Amino acid sequence: MNSLKNMSAQPCPVARSVDVIGDRWSLLVVRDAFDGVRRFSDFQRSLGVARNILSDRLRRLVDAGILAIQPASNGSAYQEYVLTKQGEALFPLVVALRQWGERHLFAEDELHSELVEKRTGKPLHFMAPRAIDNHELSPDETEVRKLS
Amino acid sequence: MNSLKNMSAQPCPVARSVDVIGDRWSLLVVRDAFDGVRRFSDFQRSLGVARNILSDRLRRLVDAGILAIQPASNGSAYQEYVLTKQGEALFPLVVALRQWGERHLFAEDELHSELVEKRTGKPLHFMAPRAIDNHELSPDETEVRKLS
Repeated sequence: MNSLKNMSAQPCPVARSVDVIGDRWSLLVVRDAFDGVRRFSDFQRSLGVARNILSDRLRRLVDAGILAIQPASNGSAYQEYVLTKQGEALFPLVVALRQWGERHLFAEDELHSELVEKRTGKPLHFMAPRAIDNHELSPDETEVRKLS
Repeated sequence: MNSLKNMSAQPCPVARSVDVIGDRWSLLVVRDAFDGVRRFSDFQRSLGVARNILSDRLRRLVDAGILAIQPASNGSAYQEYVLTKQGEALFPLVVALRQWGERHLFAEDELHSELVEKRTGKPLHFMAPRAIDNHELSPDETEVRKLS
């Protein structure tokens, strides 16, 4: 519930999420955190982003409870940024970004990185919205019930 | 495959998606399009966004093949913006944003809009990444296989 000063009246959960994470660099920092990146310099190398922008995004992600700061795992003086439980819960969002990109932003013969299950080496199932009885739902089978 | 001039060397599908859709206003325009908003003035009223920013985002979403422009359904002179097939394929992304927001950005006693199946009126199943055998995967059970 941090960093939501401007959004607390927003009854739409999509809008609240977008306010916290709907930013190019924030999304890429979270992606890297899932890939095991933990240090400022490693985020910077991976993203090629200006220091001041990276500082700002890391601070905002910490304020929002998505990343936590902890001492370096090797005992050095560096700080590390790690996903909190709330940050790890962004896994479906990162997978949704990946799967849409794979299907719509690559040519058929173009290679891309793949997210696989470690145990089997197999790619993940395609992630689709489903009804409570588990059948796949198209957008027009759903509706938003607004607060009255 | 439009609007990817700067990203065509990016082998990461997450990064390509973020480049196209990883922006606060673009995400909210897409959310509204799923809710049936079609006209410039209706997007503007819903989002409270400046005209020049909305124009820019609509143009970029059209260029990226997410929205298409069509004549107004009622025969008037207005243009309408509707989701293409590729745009409709962003449904899992919007649901992931919604479900994360519902679980992490609302107090327990705080009300929010709900996405429900029209036929039953019931909320959707929680959408989680799954292995090919369909069991739910935590982030640490997965890894990204980079291009060698």
